[in-house]
Amino acid sequence: MQQEYLARAERIMQRIQQLAAISEDADGVTRTFGTPAFLAGRALVQRWLAAAGLPTRTDGIGNLRARLQSANPAAKTFVLASHIDTVVNAGKFDGPLGVLMGLDLLENLLVQKAELPFHFELIAFSDEEGVRFHTTYLGSKVVAGSFDQALLARPDAAGVTLAQALETMGADAAQIAADAIPAADWLGYFEMHIEQGPVLWERNVPVALVTAIAGQQRVELTFRGMAGHAGTVPMAMRQDALCAAAEFVLTAEQFAQVHGRGLVATVGKLAVSHAASNVIPGEVTCSLDLRSPDEQPLAQAYDYLRSHAEAVAGHRNVTLDWQLVQYTAPVACSQPLNELLAQAIAESGYETIPLVSGAGHDAVPISFVAPATMMFVRCYKGISHNPLENVELSDLAAAVAVADRFIHLLHTQNPTR
Amino acid sequence: MQQEYLARAERIMQRIQQLAAISEDADGVTRTFGTPAFLAGRALVQRWLAAAGLPTRTDGIGNLRARLQSANPAAKTFVLASHIDTVVNAGKFDGPLGVLMGLDLLENLLVQKAELPFHFELIAFSDEEGVRFHTTYLGSKVVAGSFDQALLARPDAAGVTLAQALETMGADAAQIAADAIPAADWLGYFEMHIEQGPVLWERNVPVALVTAIAGQQRVELTFRGMAGHAGTVPMAMRQDALCAAAEFVLTAEQFAQVHGRGLVATVGKLAVSHAASNVIPGEVTCSLDLRSPDEQPLAQAYDYLRSHAEAVAGHRNVTLDWQLVQYTAPVACSQPLNELLAQAIAESGYETIPLVSGAGHDAVPISFVAPATMMFVRCYKGISHNPLENVELSDLAAAVAVADRFIHLLHTQNPTR
Repeated sequence: MQQEYLARAERIMQRIQQLAAISEDADGVTRTFGTPAFLAGRALVQRWLAAAGLPTRTDGIGNLRARLQSANPAAKTFVLASHIDTVVNAGKFDGPLGVLMGLDLLENLLVQKAELPFHFELIAFSDEEGVRFHTTYLGSKVVAGSFDQALLARPDAAGVTLAQALETMGADAAQIAADAIPAADWLGYFEMHIEQGPVLWERNVPVALVTAIAGQQRVELTFRGMAGHAGTVPMAMRQDALCAAAEFVLTAEQFAQVHGRGLVATVGKLAVSHAASNVIPGEVTCSLDLRSPDEQPLAQAYDYLRSHAEAVAGHRNVTLDWQLVQYTAPVACSQPLNELLAQAIAESGYETIPLVSGAGHDAVPISFVAPATMMFVRCYKGISHNPLENVELSDLAAAVAVADRFIHLLHTQNPTR
Repeated sequence: MQQEYLARAERIMQRIQQLAAISEDADGVTRTFGTPAFLAGRALVQRWLAAAGLPTRTDGIGNLRARLQSANPAAKTFVLASHIDTVVNAGKFDGPLGVLMGLDLLENLLVQKAELPFHFELIAFSDEEGVRFHTTYLGSKVVAGSFDQALLARPDAAGVTLAQALETMGADAAQIAADAIPAADWLGYFEMHIEQGPVLWERNVPVALVTAIAGQQRVELTFRGMAGHAGTVPMAMRQDALCAAAEFVLTAEQFAQVHGRGLVATVGKLAVSHAASNVIPGEVTCSLDLRSPDEQPLAQAYDYLRSHAEAVAGHRNVTLDWQLVQYTAPVACSQPLNELLAQAIAESGYETIPLVSGAGHDAVPISFVAPATMMFVRCYKGISHNPLENVELSDLAAAVAVADRFIHLLHTQNPTR
């Protein structure tokens, strides 16, 4: 049994390596949406699907889709998916892992000649990372039926519009509306993905149950005080914008530490205007990135930190400019699917670790039309979007076992009906 | 009496405006060492000195020097001085104020046909700011006898060496050694300068007694943690270099606030490497500028903040790189001259405010060979190195009165003999 999963994991790993060898550049992995490397990578996956005996097609946004049809004419569709585009200088696992684990699951169902109470659709989304058109989820939005046609006119850095890019790829943009899976046809959605965080690595557990995908608030704030000579302005008379920002940085960290429950707060950017070692900082601009699985703590953190920034500005006699630049609502995964996944993890002999995804995934747009969940797979030190991205073979074998069990439970219990 | 000082202040102010009109650029004031604007400015001051009946010369480093000779053949030399070079986009007062107040004092002595118990020398130093050759005190080091001949080979941004620049100016570098005032010939040194800080402005007192010129330690430090995804790394697992730096910024501020006694601490530069709003900062480099009138608190602050930075790095699991990049020892002004200046201030009816100069001045190199002191003049909001630099006429008149009184006391008490 264990040996069987290891063999399947080895085959998945070989395919991941082969797909990673197809890249826009020589050393790293870069397969952004619509490039020749992207098309070559998609063609390779398509050959594997076809070889497994799965009928495939590419849709209007360039997604690669394969269906395993139930004999039941009233059956709904359960989707297994992830993406095959990458960021620049990416790792090998972010995206392809889920697609190639899905292929393995379907191959296994075909080998078992299992009777299917519903249709399976495996989708390799064409654009999740959004590198080329500064968007996200192009592929999954089409499948969810929430694709905004106005995006077709958006140009990439070279001035090529999305519509033109699709034409070059041989995709028929006119088909996009018809490519959505109608809301009534969905049974559920399951995405397997590397964690992109260090929790599983540190705890040495191969998989985790994703209970929610965090919502996000992104703020840009500027403290403006008074620049001055570092030698001549007494401490008590200073209006130091960097000291104000430093208080804010530490309060953001502390608030998230104390609050817990998956709330994270990060000041990632901080810049001192006209900085010099002998000049008291007069203006500092910084970012705030707040994420939480729940709407209320997100709003609470936002309000608290804004009030705090205002208070700091007040007592330091500096001004504050506060701009909310992005808000994304949190998404909760499907409770019935999560219970089934937890059962699969437990029955496979692993500790069930519920995790919130701090990063966004294709499950986000899908969750608005279908019950969706995700399984995270342990990755090396939590490193992602980096050539160092790695998954250990034993963890992959464990993940295959859990996914297998999950699909089996899905067959027998069909919880979403 | 009051009217007389106001009239003298008006003439000084007119000369300051006329000198400020000579600039390398059209709108601001820029007269860096050795440029045509610098030479034109120096020539204007030279004409004023000559018109006052003072014999003048320019020395090997381009200083403009005028002497009022005592009849006493054994007399020593008392120097009044400041500089006539400027930073780029400077104000009108930093430097010229002291030179033109000195000219006014000597003119007054000539009018009074005062008998001089010692020689007066008025010096307009050619380079205090060090903009062109990234040095400081070129002019005063020559007069103090501490000029390093190796500097003659140093190039400016255009590749012109100091030796070539001096040749272009018509200065004879071979004379530099002979241009020093021998240690045995010094009676004392007095420099008048705008405060470049806000204390007198806030307290609305026209002048201050400078008791010391602060020593300085300049440090560059880098915290290195681990960059990570702002959404996926839990708060407890982070190694955030910016949070470490923020702790350091606030501790440096707090240490200086609590210590008092003229100690100031400034983090003027802070940069996050590869900063992005959704990336936990992995590396932050910042500066530390520490100044104090006394050597011991400076050393104490340095040691404390270094230990603190190491402790922060330790408890946050980041590394620290700490580089001392500059050390300048504090300079105490001459106690007897300071007492005399305090007496002059008190007798002129003003509160005596002892101040430490946080900025460096020509008095620093001179203080190694001669008793030296300085008087600060109130400037608008403490703003300096900026076109907004300003001195109010009433403050200037008060400063003239105090300086007059100081010279009178020097004549009658000759405290340094």
